Amino acid sequence: MKALLLIAHGSRRQRSNDEVIELADKLKSECAEHYDIVQAAFLELADILIADGIENCVNDGATHITVLPYFLNSGRHVTEDIPHDIDVVRPKFPDVQIFIADHIGASSAMIGMLRTAAIANQ
Amino acid sequence: MKALLLIAHGSRRQRSNDEVIELADKLKSECAEHYDIVQAAFLELADILIADGIENCVNDGATHITVLPYFLNSGRHVTEDIPHDIDVVRPKFPDVQIFIADHIGASSAMIGMLRTAAIANQ
Repeated sequence: MKALLLIAHGSRRQRSNDEVIELADKLKSECAEHYDIVQAAFLELADILIADGIENCVNDGATHITVLPYFLNSGRHVTEDIPHDIDVVRPKFPDVQIFIADHIGASSAMIGMLRTAAIANQ
Repeated sequence: MKALLLIAHGSRRQRSNDEVIELADKLKSECAEHYDIVQAAFLELADILIADGIENCVNDGATHITVLPYFLNSGRHVTEDIPHDIDVVRPKFPDVQIFIADHIGASSAMIGMLRTAAIANQ
């Protein structure tokens, strides 16, 4: 059973966190053929945190979790903090595969997305 | 003559700023039919800042500038800081139209982009 965990930074401003949760909800219906579970989690400042997000996916039956960092650049959060939080939780679920995808800023799809946004606003 | 100014936050880590500049360079070739000029600028911490980015576009001949905030959520930077910086520079160029597009996190293209990234990493 496959899960996608969209990881955002997290904000003290609940509206920002809600935007990420709404995005994960939309993504769930868009990716229904590919992922049984789609949820959002946060690196800090917001519920739910990464470890809880992983645990929720496992409790819902996930055996394979793709962690997708909703970050634009490859700063410390992407290169160190998210991998660290995953490494801490990984031993709790030895039978679950957890894979960290590239942050979205490095996705080849980003340029197409920016092109669409740019042309829509010319 | 149309210009697109991609505005990122800016980082003390030059590698992060370079990623944005590289993205703007790629976007330039992707949008060549729609924009004569495509450049990156930064809200803070990095060269070049928003006011300088606008001025460079005008010096290169832009009469219509689309400002595209490379931000994921609608925090203060998007709702207040970028509009403020644009409002400060706008009177310098009364003959140039400057339009601030939605930040990319609010673009309808974002969900498609996340879907692509999610499926590529399942």
